[in-house]
Amino acid sequence: MDNRTGLPVVGMVGGGQLARMTHQAAISLGQSLRVLSEKPDDSAALVAADVPIGTHTDLAALREFAKGCDAVTFDHEQVPTEHIEALEAEGVKIFPGSKALVFAQDKGLMRERLAALKAPVPRWARVTSGEEIEAFAAGSWPVVAKATRGGYDGRGVWMVGSREAADDLVSTGVPLIVEEKVPLRRELAALVARSPFGQVAAYPVVETVQQDGICVEVIAPAPGLSDDLALEAQQLAIDLANALGVVGLLAVELFETADGIVVNELAMRPHNSGHWTIEGARTSQFEQHLRAVLDYPMGSTGLAAPVVVMANVLGGEPGGISIDERLHHLFAEVPDARVHLYGKQVRPGRKIGHVTVLGDDLEKVRARAARAAKWLQEGV
Amino acid sequence: MDNRTGLPVVGMVGGGQLARMTHQAAISLGQSLRVLSEKPDDSAALVAADVPIGTHTDLAALREFAKGCDAVTFDHEQVPTEHIEALEAEGVKIFPGSKALVFAQDKGLMRERLAALKAPVPRWARVTSGEEIEAFAAGSWPVVAKATRGGYDGRGVWMVGSREAADDLVSTGVPLIVEEKVPLRRELAALVARSPFGQVAAYPVVETVQQDGICVEVIAPAPGLSDDLALEAQQLAIDLANALGVVGLLAVELFETADGIVVNELAMRPHNSGHWTIEGARTSQFEQHLRAVLDYPMGSTGLAAPVVVMANVLGGEPGGISIDERLHHLFAEVPDARVHLYGKQVRPGRKIGHVTVLGDDLEKVRARAARAAKWLQEGV
Repeated sequence: MDNRTGLPVVGMVGGGQLARMTHQAAISLGQSLRVLSEKPDDSAALVAADVPIGTHTDLAALREFAKGCDAVTFDHEQVPTEHIEALEAEGVKIFPGSKALVFAQDKGLMRERLAALKAPVPRWARVTSGEEIEAFAAGSWPVVAKATRGGYDGRGVWMVGSREAADDLVSTGVPLIVEEKVPLRRELAALVARSPFGQVAAYPVVETVQQDGICVEVIAPAPGLSDDLALEAQQLAIDLANALGVVGLLAVELFETADGIVVNELAMRPHNSGHWTIEGARTSQFEQHLRAVLDYPMGSTGLAAPVVVMANVLGGEPGGISIDERLHHLFAEVPDARVHLYGKQVRPGRKIGHVTVLGDDLEKVRARAARAAKWLQEGV
Repeated sequence: MDNRTGLPVVGMVGGGQLARMTHQAAISLGQSLRVLSEKPDDSAALVAADVPIGTHTDLAALREFAKGCDAVTFDHEQVPTEHIEALEAEGVKIFPGSKALVFAQDKGLMRERLAALKAPVPRWARVTSGEEIEAFAAGSWPVVAKATRGGYDGRGVWMVGSREAADDLVSTGVPLIVEEKVPLRRELAALVARSPFGQVAAYPVVETVQQDGICVEVIAPAPGLSDDLALEAQQLAIDLANALGVVGLLAVELFETADGIVVNELAMRPHNSGHWTIEGARTSQFEQHLRAVLDYPMGSTGLAAPVVVMANVLGGEPGGISIDERLHHLFAEVPDARVHLYGKQVRPGRKIGHVTVLGDDLEKVRARAARAAKWLQEGV
């Protein structure tokens, strides 16, 4: 509790753009997010007032950080599970808790648990040798190999097309699972938030568009998705949040196939598939996450417009006009685009921001969002 | 320019809620607002990363603060005009500039200039004695007396009902103007932003509802306002912004009478009558102000919903349930209310936050906003 304001203090481990945008949401709630940041120029550290410097793998730093926090939560999934368990044992309120978070940290455990819950998942197996991968493929290459821990934005995921490639991958020593390559129509995401009280709020199901394993576009609501399938996806996310005991946000990444939906990944934090909610929903995912971890009643997840499209801005090649000049051009070209820049150094392919456009006409809104992102990304 | 991000640095003098909300907007633009704050627990100082402590009346502090800022702007009008002139002479980019800002600082100069521009104003006069006030009243009491400088939220404004009251007021030594008590139907506000390039963006005209000289409610767009009068109000604000050379926001507070509109006050900064734009317009006034002072192209001022109502939350009497508990109740009662708390100590009558509700039905939206504000204010 902040004695000056009488309002709670939430600590977020990790100083990336998710913490940055959560701080923005915290300000509206009368709070100031406490951010455990690795470096003073991390995305959130540049804009927040209360930023101890420390590393998420350092239990002493986590312990010190948690003092005085009403709740501690995460910008990423990389905090060692045993550290979270240690803090929980000491009475720190950490959300999501270790018992839930582990299923977002470890893809093997996630697959096992989802299978036990009879949630729809791709055919999968834990593997420790090229031979096992070959047996899993059963002649039907490629298969998808995933590091059980630590992957994001396409890292830690490999399309394995042969026994040789399988042997090479196994030789790196990374613990792996393999999955069938799902014949997908498209990717969807179902985002829900759950409070300790057990209230769950579900956002409209969105379509996510990926390039090279990185999300480039999110369309809300998912165009042409039947009401039945939308409800099924929302119910699945709600059921998983309840079954896993998630507190905070749960993003369920889904594949839509000819036969329905299967779960691809879980994330238990604000998620790229929910950035559109900042302007596109009555309550942003960032505020919703804060409300959930503080056990406030959930906010309305209603849409603010018939169509909302978010486009990620990836770092382009060095050179060309400055980011500031690009912003001038973008603002002149698309005066209704909502811009979010993360204060990051530009590196090719790195997410440095996103843009959101709201409107009525799907194709027009998509085109405007793409144009806005292209201006920021390529300066043309 | 921030060398890490390649994006500009804006400095805001004053650490109140306007700076706090401007910082929120700055974060989206990849920036971090630099705030000159009097105290480390001022509203904006609690949430911003770059907060030198200093006073707006201290030229040396202003000078130091301005170093490295691409633009300097204001949270309030209290910076001495001569300090602004001194900084301008040294090449600091201050917006609005002293030549414009003085008309928001000094009501006497404002009335003279508006009269010269043939803008509609109440009958008024500078006065230095009770005798002059009595002559101005010409038997028609009360008249409105205003301190030429330093008033806000009803302070510095007096209804003077007699020669005795006039004598008492004059005896305080405050420089005064008097104005006729305008037979108003209601109060309106026209908000525009103007960039150095000369681009002007006008928001929909709103109705503002006052109690005891303090704004308690803003309705966007102003209900039942004819298109002609709305256009006239917007054009008036645009003309004034151009004529006065305003850079940044200009809020023109208006009286609507049976005969049309007259100008009540001018403000050249984010303004309470524009808080609804955070969720209610495509571009918030806070982002628009940053865009204007940085000479970015202006953002869309379009409405995000047919009806937007903002209600201020004033500090209530001490006692009762805590602000945090009130927030729980409010969130349960009005899940679509957008809450903005300023991190301020509660004092009776002090603006400690605001709530915004969007919707289609005027009376329902007003009722929901009022209910939300009442929960935060009174905890019932």
